[in-house]
Order: sequence, then C-alpha cells, then structure tokens
Amino acid sequence: MSLSKEDYPISVLYNFELGDFSPKEKTIARRVSYLSKMFHDRTAAESLIKQGDPVVYETSYYGFKTSLSDMALGVTRIQPGKVGDEYFMTKGHFHEAKNQPEIYFCVKGEGYLLLETIDGEFQAEKWTEGTISHIPPMWAHRTINTGMGLMVFVASYHLSAGYSYEAVEKNGFKKLLVERNEKPELILNDKRKR
Amino acid sequence: MSLSKEDYPISVLYNFELGDFSPKEKTIARRVSYLSKMFHDRTAAESLIKQGDPVVYETSYYGFKTSLSDMALGVTRIQPGKVGDEYFMTKGHFHEAKNQPEIYFCVKGEGYLLLETIDGEFQAEKWTEGTISHIPPMWAHRTINTGMGLMVFVASYHLSAGYSYEAVEKNGFKKLLVERNEKPELILNDKRKR
Repeated sequence: MSLSKEDYPISVLYNFELGDFSPKEKTIARRVSYLSKMFHDRTAAESLIKQGDPVVYETSYYGFKTSLSDMALGVTRIQPGKVGDEYFMTKGHFHEAKNQPEIYFCVKGEGYLLLETIDGEFQAEKWTEGTISHIPPMWAHRTINTGMGLMVFVASYHLSAGYSYEAVEKNGFKKLLVERNEKPELILNDKRKR
Repeated sequence: MSLSKEDYPISVLYNFELGDFSPKEKTIARRVSYLSKMFHDRTAAESLIKQGDPVVYETSYYGFKTSLSDMALGVTRIQPGKVGDEYFMTKGHFHEAKNQPEIYFCVKGEGYLLLETIDGEFQAEKWTEGTISHIPPMWAHRTINTGMGLMVFVASYHLSAGYSYEAVEKNGFKKLLVERNEKPELILNDKRKR
C-alpha cells in the first residue's frame, strides 16, 4: 500500500480551560443576527443586535480526510446568555446523508441537546459535564447552554454527513427552551406551522 | 420513516474523576498474563503474574447500533506501571475493515500512541491531557501510559471496523517504549523478525 500525505496520523491538542483546540482548519462564529429568526422573541433579538450583536457560539473544525475515510472533529463553544427568555443555542441541523450518526461529548458546562425527526418525534437530553450523546441518523440536533459559563462539546462525525438547515430554518424545533422561575423549561413552539 | 427502539438518541455520563462512564454494555479487563508475550522482559512479566497478575488496562464499550448506522464509544483506562522497564500498554490492533478510521481523545494522564502500517511505517504521538489523535485506516494502534496516574482516552469508531490482532501478536510493534534515565524512550524491538 502506498500512502499519501493525507494518510498519516494527525494529532491536535484540546485545551480544557479555553474549550478550544489547535491546530484547526477553521472556526465559524455565529452572532445573534445570524440566528435572529430562530429565537421566538424577535424584539429581544433586534435589541441585542443593536447592542453589538454578540457571538452566541463558535465551532472549530478539523477534517481528517484520508484516501480511504473522512472522519472529522468539531468543537463548539456556546456562550452563556439569553435572547429574551430563550437560552443561547446553536441553529441546529439535519445531516444531508440519511445514514450518518454523530457523537457529542459535553466537556464543559451544562445545557440540553434537542433532537427531532422530520415526522415530529422529539427528545431532549439534559447535559452536564461528561454527558456523551449519540445522535442517530435522521434526527435534527440543536444544543443549548443553560449554565452561567461556557458550554463546550466535542463532536465526532463524518465529512460525508453534510448539513441540511432548511427544515430547521423553516419550522424551528417543536419545543423551545426558555427560562421560567430561574429554571430551564421546555415549551411548545407557537410558530410551528404543522 | 418508522423508528425502531434502537433508532432513538442515547446518552451516557462520563466521570472525569474516575475515568469511566455509565451505563455501558461491557468492560473488559486485561491483566499482565494476557499481555505477557507483548512485553520484551518475559522474566519481569512472569514475576508480576506470580505477584497477583495486576490489571494493566480496562476498556468499557457502548455500541450505538441503529437500523442505519453503527457508531460506538470506548473508554480505556491504562494503569500506571511497568513490566521491567517497559510501560503498561494496550495490546494494540489493526481494524479488520480496511477503510475504518478512529478518533482517540486523551482525557486524563500522559503517554504515547504508537501507530504502524503493515509495511512498517511507524509513528509515535506524544499524548498529554487533551490530545486528540486521528488513526487513519490500515494503521495498527497501541496506547501507553508513561505517567504516575491513570491514563484515560475516549474512542469514537464504528462497530463494523472490527479487530485484527494477529499481526501485532506475532511481531509486536517496531518500537518499544521503555524507561531510560527516568524518561520514556523509544527503542527498536529486537524480537521483530522482519
């Protein structure tokens, strides 16, 4: 077997304090403006955007593409905060490929992983430091930080999984995670059309 | 789409102190006797076996098998210790499937990941807390604890990767990791036939 440069082992270093790793291929930062239509309180979102449009989350990637495989690593850091009464969260997505799962490992902070199928099956996983969740194929997934500090999770998946945002952008998730009496509570998403 | 019971999301909880998670499917413990032929100092191995045959490492598994996918989680805890001058280590294996990579995340301790192809390409990755390594397909892999405490890593892979131990059992790895002047040092494996 003749090896290409991409077929050799690679290591990166994750920093548990910072919630970040290096080297990495790229980091994408998502601000309130990018997510404004996902939060149910649009007025609160507009107000935050005017106040400086803070970063809600950042995701850093490393794709371990070889001539035979395509595993990848992602680290997502969600800031603590709320838009109105709704906690900072990721946009959420389905995988484009229908047979692609993913593993999420919550390494810092606390929050929730929301999951939903296209047929409306819904599941909420409560996360604490150390929770490891398996996301089966065909389940949209969104993560939410309900804590006072950063929430960070490490993801392991395949590049061939791809992303599909359309369904989530159109309908959001079935339930929203909002603060009620200083505690997180799942409520039905009024704006859900179906 | 109709979901089977196995197609729902699952979470487990990893404990950073203990280096273990629950619930899990099974744990396998490997003692010196299981590995005795892998260490270069057979006399030291025999002596340790007579002194109680200590556990060298334990691996706990959870297979996230769904009707569409087969990702899995493994957590391996290597005890601190040596057989003669050679550090406690895993046996090491190739994947049976030729196109299956794996991601290892060192969450505790320090040590090395040794990698080798069937053609004798060799690579040693130095691990510290936070190192994340990608193991490309067709590379045998072994982990070694060179620290004073537990070394723990979390693995993400596919059940269909399978295990192949034959080449490693027959020839070992090209290099051994031994203590020299109180530091880890890679030396050539004399017993290597080729």
